[in-house]
Amino acid sequence: MRPSGRQPDQPREIRLTRDYTRHAEGSVLVEFGDTKVLCNASVEAGVPRWLRGKGQGWITAEYGMLPRATHTRGGREAARGKQGGRTLEIQRLIGRSLRAAVNLKKLGEFTITVDCDVIQADGGTRTASITGGCVALVDAIRYLQRKKLIKSDPLQQLVASISVGLFKGQPVVDLDYPEDSGADTDMNVVMTEGGGLIEVQGTAEAGQFSRAELNAMLELAEGAGATLFARQREALGIRD
Amino acid sequence: MRPSGRQPDQPREIRLTRDYTRHAEGSVLVEFGDTKVLCNASVEAGVPRWLRGKGQGWITAEYGMLPRATHTRGGREAARGKQGGRTLEIQRLIGRSLRAAVNLKKLGEFTITVDCDVIQADGGTRTASITGGCVALVDAIRYLQRKKLIKSDPLQQLVASISVGLFKGQPVVDLDYPEDSGADTDMNVVMTEGGGLIEVQGTAEAGQFSRAELNAMLELAEGAGATLFARQREALGIRD
Amino acid sequence: MRPSGRQPDQPREIRLTRDYTRHAEGSVLVEFGDTKVLCNASVEAGVPRWLRGKGQGWITAEYGMLPRATHTRGGREAARGKQGGRTLEIQRLIGRSLRAAVNLKKLGEFTITVDCDVIQADGGTRTASITGGCVALVDAIRYLQRKKLIKSDPLQQLVASISVGLFKGQPVVDLDYPEDSGADTDMNVVMTEGGGLIEVQGTAEAGQFSRAELNAMLELAEGAGATLFARQREALGIRD
Amino acid sequence: MRPSGRQPDQPREIRLTRDYTRHAEGSVLVEFGDTKVLCNASVEAGVPRWLRGKGQGWITAEYGMLPRATHTRGGREAARGKQGGRTLEIQRLIGRSLRAAVNLKKLGEFTITVDCDVIQADGGTRTASITGGCVALVDAIRYLQRKKLIKSDPLQQLVASISVGLFKGQPVVDLDYPEDSGADTDMNVVMTEGGGLIEVQGTAEAGQFSRAELNAMLELAEGAGATLFARQREALGIRD
Amino acid sequence: MRPSGRQPDQPREIRLTRDYTRHAEGSVLVEFGDTKVLCNASVEAGVPRWLRGKGQGWITAEYGMLPRATHTRGGREAARGKQGGRTLEIQRLIGRSLRAAVNLKKLGEFTITVDCDVIQADGGTRTASITGGCVALVDAIRYLQRKKLIKSDPLQQLVASISVGLFKGQPVVDLDYPEDSGADTDMNVVMTEGGGLIEVQGTAEAGQFSRAELNAMLELAEGAGATLFARQREALGIRD
Amino acid sequence: MRPSGRQPDQPREIRLTRDYTRHAEGSVLVEFGDTKVLCNASVEAGVPRWLRGKGQGWITAEYGMLPRATHTRGGREAARGKQGGRTLEIQRLIGRSLRAAVNLKKLGEFTITVDCDVIQADGGTRTASITGGCVALVDAIRYLQRKKLIKSDPLQQLVASISVGLFKGQPVVDLDYPEDSGADTDMNVVMTEGGGLIEVQGTAEAGQFSRAELNAMLELAEGAGATLFARQREALGIRD
Repeated sequence: MRPSGRQPDQPREIRLTRDYTRHAEGSVLVEFGDTKVLCNASVEAGVPRWLRGKGQGWITAEYGMLPRATHTRGGREAARGKQGGRTLEIQRLIGRSLRAAVNLKKLGEFTITVDCDVIQADGGTRTASITGGCVALVDAIRYLQRKKLIKSDPLQQLVASISVGLFKGQPVVDLDYPEDSGADTDMNVVMTEGGGLIEVQGTAEAGQFSRAELNAMLELAEGAGATLFARQREALGIRD
Repeated sequence: MRPSGRQPDQPREIRLTRDYTRHAEGSVLVEFGDTKVLCNASVEAGVPRWLRGKGQGWITAEYGMLPRATHTRGGREAARGKQGGRTLEIQRLIGRSLRAAVNLKKLGEFTITVDCDVIQADGGTRTASITGGCVALVDAIRYLQRKKLIKSDPLQQLVASISVGLFKGQPVVDLDYPEDSGADTDMNVVMTEGGGLIEVQGTAEAGQFSRAELNAMLELAEGAGATLFARQREALGIRD
Repeated sequence: MRPSGRQPDQPREIRLTRDYTRHAEGSVLVEFGDTKVLCNASVEAGVPRWLRGKGQGWITAEYGMLPRATHTRGGREAARGKQGGRTLEIQRLIGRSLRAAVNLKKLGEFTITVDCDVIQADGGTRTASITGGCVALVDAIRYLQRKKLIKSDPLQQLVASISVGLFKGQPVVDLDYPEDSGADTDMNVVMTEGGGLIEVQGTAEAGQFSRAELNAMLELAEGAGATLFARQREALGIRD
Repeated sequence: MRPSGRQPDQPREIRLTRDYTRHAEGSVLVEFGDTKVLCNASVEAGVPRWLRGKGQGWITAEYGMLPRATHTRGGREAARGKQGGRTLEIQRLIGRSLRAAVNLKKLGEFTITVDCDVIQADGGTRTASITGGCVALVDAIRYLQRKKLIKSDPLQQLVASISVGLFKGQPVVDLDYPEDSGADTDMNVVMTEGGGLIEVQGTAEAGQFSRAELNAMLELAEGAGATLFARQREALGIRD
Repeated sequence: MRPSGRQPDQPREIRLTRDYTRHAEGSVLVEFGDTKVLCNASVEAGVPRWLRGKGQGWITAEYGMLPRATHTRGGREAARGKQGGRTLEIQRLIGRSLRAAVNLKKLGEFTITVDCDVIQADGGTRTASITGGCVALVDAIRYLQRKKLIKSDPLQQLVASISVGLFKGQPVVDLDYPEDSGADTDMNVVMTEGGGLIEVQGTAEAGQFSRAELNAMLELAEGAGATLFARQREALGIRD
Repeated sequence: MRPSGRQPDQPREIRLTRDYTRHAEGSVLVEFGDTKVLCNASVEAGVPRWLRGKGQGWITAEYGMLPRATHTRGGREAARGKQGGRTLEIQRLIGRSLRAAVNLKKLGEFTITVDCDVIQADGGTRTASITGGCVALVDAIRYLQRKKLIKSDPLQQLVASISVGLFKGQPVVDLDYPEDSGADTDMNVVMTEGGGLIEVQGTAEAGQFSRAELNAMLELAEGAGATLFARQREALGIRD
């Protein structure tokens, strides 16, 4: 029995609200149950120095948590003077995942930075960030197209992400905080609509996991993928 | 004529939404028109080292802006490795202002940290932070009372803040971004309900201002104060 | 009765010593009684990146305190690895105030940096810095004129600053450390010779202050202004 | 055909040299072909603050690269003033992996820090670090036992790690630098001797990977595991 | 011929002004010609953590340069966020040298920090800092004795320092900036009154120096030592 | 009697192993007994900004210690976020010393960075770094010549370094850790083959030293120099 009463294969309610703030080219509030992340995609002309002159664009991501997004207040990273290892690890993951959605050659020499700021945390902030960040990214790309700054469509596929894990020995999908903090194994899966895998990060928090358990978890992730992509399509008004 | 069409003495629509997030002891979304700041008040047992053993509490504030709260993306302070001078100046002002609301002796050895994070900026983020932060602070104090962690009520008065300025030679209240960036003089006023002044910070951005202009601006601030305190009382369910 | 025995409207003895060190284009030791600040104005060709090509100059300021300028030794900011919030706040104020003295368009693409380093502190270091920094700034401008690097005179007016406050309920001018640490309200006023206000920063350290008290304090500041500008003119050899 | 001429399932020559330096309680030079990492395990009494009084120990890891371990010189992280995201991500992975080898309760209030410093890099530095770090960790545990500082044996299992990937469409094991920089998918697998998985991190560098490809890569990792554990046992003088 | 017209064995005019500022327990302005350094010695109860409980005191030094102490403005180390290598090297030298003056056992558990801040630089700032810092240190020790905080006299000897070098092939003493920047060899010597050496740091800036030249330079340093110690004794009112 | 049983004028066994790693243009493992330092010389086109266009090259050095090179683990400087004063002081010394080996004009606009990383420490790491770094530097210069990137030979002389000191009152050469930590005086000498001195840094750790003792120590250094240069020549295959 899951603490939330959900079925093992049942993700939380997933909501994607576009145009959540007014300045960013793409601004999406993504909610996975009580986890709420604001994903703002910003378009800037130019690319990082090491990419200049290569005729391609760049997608990058930054991640942050408001100090009181969590049960107890965490120190503000800006005040401490550096981003922690967890933050850097997560924003590298988000950036890699979102780059898989885009043909950087077709993006032209633009950089899109996707800021994922956690307003409220209840487990799964990185998977929510990727799922919501992808929608914000699509809006930023549409902005570039609308302004006729790029000609062809650089979007090659939607990407979305969900967590799976072993909780009390059972594979479950979309772990909330009570499950996340008690799970034996925790895995984040980044997927494409066609069933392809972009990133798989599984960690045994206690003990170890078997190939069979890995496969059972991936089944759950694949199943939840259908929901995630449906929500993204609905939010973006994309018909099948 | 103001860009927004408002009257010189007319503040923007002011909204205070309590319980905006679920973890903080006080959580208020404050909106001054399009300026939106999330104010989370966190209660922690204990006080900073230099106050220990003095039998009093402490109120402090931290301020941040989401990178894309503004028209163009600003660098993330956590990534740059330090808080800028403007940030530090603002959070010192918020902290000082909120301490004026509370009898620290009656607070006991608790620290309340008020995090003011700007979700969307359109001028007046520091005045909104003080006004909304005070409501979050009251909720945090009520939490302490409800949990019977303190006996007497440390709240001595509500505080609120509004900006005033000289825009095209005319005194106006509650400047939005277009006014703020074009004003000759910009002044932030922190007030108590009884008409007392807690902080007055006036700056001539171009030229100088006279004693008469200063007084005209203070009149406008005093007028808007009535609205601010009414909104705070409504939000908190305090009758006169 | 003031601790120093001064009258409420009586500033401390104010001394301005030009050419205090030999390398800076403007070098002034300013003394407000026992408060001693060395103000060095340095001329450098060029302007910050964001001003390039706009055909104007820039004035900026930095502020520091020698570790043992105060009663007890303060940590060296260079050793701690960052400037504190108070330092940043003060140097932003000095910079803004000194820019009000100059027509930046007439300065041409030069940057003048005014370093204000407190040798000995006894209250009022920021007001002394502005008052002495303005004299150093004038010397730096004269250097540019003497070297024929600029044609017209960018100085538009002298600026000076004094603190006022409510000490034991009474408005007083130019607070020294014993008054400063015990004052109910503390206000720094930056003025022009013509009676204009450049910056007003008033803070209730305990309780609040009224509009009437604010005005009484501004009267005192205005009165002391005459002395400040007379000292600046004497030091610079400017006749009326 | 692999650039090195190896078979798809053939890892590089793996060498583990114990007692490589003389001060550390465990000191192992691990070589995966031309990748050379010095793994030093240091025993210190006490645990981090957040673990105190819980009657358990702690294992942590730090990772670094000598500036010229790579083809072109990389900036020294100590000189740049911070560890990069890649470094932090890797050392978090090493620490998590090595903790899986140990029963922290049986370790007592000791901290073992495993420093993995890359002397020469040719791909796979993190997998080499885990594999060699585990041997250094065992030596540090033996030191504690020899000194009679702990009674029972906290080692619960050996852990080792290998990279697998898709290179030109084919699954291969233990990628060297030329393969690593050209691989479509790169995956690091941390395993136990019993065939359990501790960590799986797979990333599509270009395109995506399928469940079938994931399984093919895991097969290769499992196969190489036999070699890794054999080398660890030989080095440690453990018979089956 | 030296640029200043001085004889090879002639140091600049050396002045030591005690009680230069009023808060420090020892406050000395030291001038070696146009080089001016303010040396403030601060007494604090307690010692660094690693010395606690050993029944001895500690002497340490910090060094800084006001940004415009030099011909062109140097960046403020506090603003850059770290002390440079030259600064750290100099303050380590000053600290070591001053510790040689004192019997730390007799000092008791007090720390004396000597801040050496360069007001104006013209070569030889480190030697001036040591020579002036020693006088400030003696005043701090006298303060401890006057307040009866220590019983016996921890001062074991005066220490002083002078630079020597090879300028255009000739050994000269007390190099000023024009000589310093053009010297082939530069050497700083820290001495005791009895002719003992505390520290010798000689560097060939161009070419190399011979044992004979080293000895010739040491002769000059020894000769100047007489002047330095005479000035220290005069300043401190110590008769022979 | 020295702890190691060596004669006063007997240095430890000195070994220089070239081509220790494969990426650097010069890679030397230098051993002074149990002190082991990896010296990697990296060639990069271009020079620091302040040297551009002057038609000369630059030699610089960086120094680091692996955390467990020493008896007890030292904090990793990259993790602490800055290089300590000792590190900066040493790397400045190495850089200055190695520049004495080279005619920078003949080097052309190349920068050679010599990274000295201490694998195992037993006293004398800076002297080993200079001695081994010089051999790595020669290999980097030979690389430039082999690639025909420079025409003439910029090497003007070999440089080497050894420590000397007063241990229990007696002058000894090449102090190992037990001697180093107990010596009254410690001196590092950087020499040329012709008997010239490049750098002399002598420090009285306890008491003071006389001119006679200084000379006795320099004699020992000169004697050991013969061994050092012989080892460098052997390693480099240079005949007399």
